[in-house]
Amino acid sequence: MSNIQLIRFAKNNSTNRVVETPLLSNKKVNQIIGKKVFIKPECLQVTGSFKFRGAWSALSHFQNEDKVFNGVVAYSSGNHAQGIAAAAKAHKVPAVIIMPMDAPRIKIENTLNYGAEVIFYDRMKEVREDIGEKIAKEKNLRLIRPYDEPLVIAGQGTCGWEIALQAKALGIKDAEVLVCCGGGGLSAGIALALEELAPSFSVRTCEPEFFDDTARSLCSGKREINQASENSICDAILTPTPGELTFPILKKLAGKGLVASDDQVLRAMKCLYENFKLVAEPGGAVALAAALFSSQILKKENIIVVVSGGNVDSNLFARALSTESINL
Amino acid sequence: MSNIQLIRFAKNNSTNRVVETPLLSNKKVNQIIGKKVFIKPECLQVTGSFKFRGAWSALSHFQNEDKVFNGVVAYSSGNHAQGIAAAAKAHKVPAVIIMPMDAPRIKIENTLNYGAEVIFYDRMKEVREDIGEKIAKEKNLRLIRPYDEPLVIAGQGTCGWEIALQAKALGIKDAEVLVCCGGGGLSAGIALALEELAPSFSVRTCEPEFFDDTARSLCSGKREINQASENSICDAILTPTPGELTFPILKKLAGKGLVASDDQVLRAMKCLYENFKLVAEPGGAVALAAALFSSQILKKENIIVVVSGGNVDSNLFARALSTESINL
Repeated sequence: MSNIQLIRFAKNNSTNRVVETPLLSNKKVNQIIGKKVFIKPECLQVTGSFKFRGAWSALSHFQNEDKVFNGVVAYSSGNHAQGIAAAAKAHKVPAVIIMPMDAPRIKIENTLNYGAEVIFYDRMKEVREDIGEKIAKEKNLRLIRPYDEPLVIAGQGTCGWEIALQAKALGIKDAEVLVCCGGGGLSAGIALALEELAPSFSVRTCEPEFFDDTARSLCSGKREINQASENSICDAILTPTPGELTFPILKKLAGKGLVASDDQVLRAMKCLYENFKLVAEPGGAVALAAALFSSQILKKENIIVVVSGGNVDSNLFARALSTESINL
Repeated sequence: MSNIQLIRFAKNNSTNRVVETPLLSNKKVNQIIGKKVFIKPECLQVTGSFKFRGAWSALSHFQNEDKVFNGVVAYSSGNHAQGIAAAAKAHKVPAVIIMPMDAPRIKIENTLNYGAEVIFYDRMKEVREDIGEKIAKEKNLRLIRPYDEPLVIAGQGTCGWEIALQAKALGIKDAEVLVCCGGGGLSAGIALALEELAPSFSVRTCEPEFFDDTARSLCSGKREINQASENSICDAILTPTPGELTFPILKKLAGKGLVASDDQVLRAMKCLYENFKLVAEPGGAVALAAALFSSQILKKENIIVVVSGGNVDSNLFARALSTESINL
């Protein structure tokens, strides 16, 4: 199947299981940014992030195949973990999840609550890809990579599918679509859907400061790597380099990448709290942070901002609440 | 027009202007309550509460009439204020809003931001209905009452219209619909829509402790009055007695009323934050608080909970965050 066929298949398979999140707007935020801004709140998705889309896509595909396997395995800082755990449970398939020891508490607890077996590893000393492949082989589990997996990219693409149709219904003819970017599964999936359904729209990746591998790779044309020494509050999207499958898609379809600092991200979280009544995690607020603080480099009148997730520990959310509100 | 015709008219008139909020569910919350729970997040509505539905209904009706008037006037603790201010601005109609001096800061600021003129009064010493009627007469403004107004009830009814269709799409054949209740505009509107579109569903009003006038009135059969001496954090729904127009509707269509304490409401806000990534104000979380803490008196398997608004000051929200999470 072609990419868009996979996306269509994923969309049709997800009715009543994946939330069709609305497009939200707010007059004050429009005035602050000086554009028409539309928020796609994937924090309202099952498991609190868009990752459930890709997980559901993979699991529902497996059900239609003949292969015999004992379950699925995934590695993830937490959102893919919850997505796979929940989708596997709904499909009655056992799941093993490999998570870093320092993943946010809420993400570990939720993954366990969905009934998955969790194996911890040390982000600084071990390579999660190696652990994943070893366990998959030993236990005959199917490995579901977080972004370098066509079925996962197609699932994330259903978000772009919805954006295209919802924008059309609102009479939006052209837009820049800002998407947070770790490995690039969400941005690549959205870009593929828009290429087919809203070809005038352009995707722009948004990354945390010091983790701007995609922005730099889009400039240089090859997959750049981040310094391992830096840190960020945006735990969900701290990948070392763009994906092997996702980068060629973004290279073809995405505009110049945007970057936001941790402070800007915290203020974007406050802005989402105040004006949209949404709880966003830091990685989920990067795209709005870029729209708020780099609006001068946006070209189009309509900006669609994907808020990718909301799984944030309360102490960090309280920190965002205590930042200064952005006013006119 | 009949009630249901008014609701249909309001629904048709609101396309692309009023957000069709989704129905959200969460496995963990289902397990906690022991029922299938569906959240209708009206905090995502334009202006952060369902009140925009009723305001839009009234303003769009006025546009189709011949009457000459200089603008609209409304009295409100804050959510009806914002709804009217925003709907009036979109219709290019001047708005005067009468608000209590002690309304939450965020509600006053937002009402001003929508371009309305705000007049303050003292909740303990003045009667807002009298001020509203006096100003309406003097300035030739149309008074839009917050709940005792058929066009407003019809607008709120569009929420029930959506609930009926969304529940049908999910295969839900029977449900109790829990709705927070101040004057009763939202619960009466929803009850009217469900009477027509999902007659097996039943509405149950939810009120803060000490402000359970509707629950008591539904028991006694006549409009009971609250003690004026008590207080509650649920600023949005602190009305003295059920509405003249709304109570007969609720008396005919609603089940026994539910009540929740301030502490229960704060924990329901935390639950909405953690599991649904939603920001609810206290009055907006009363129905979930009732579902969480009075589930033993709910009769049906499916429970639809309306989260009516999310306009809450940060210090109060931080207080909710600091409460203990509800776990299995």
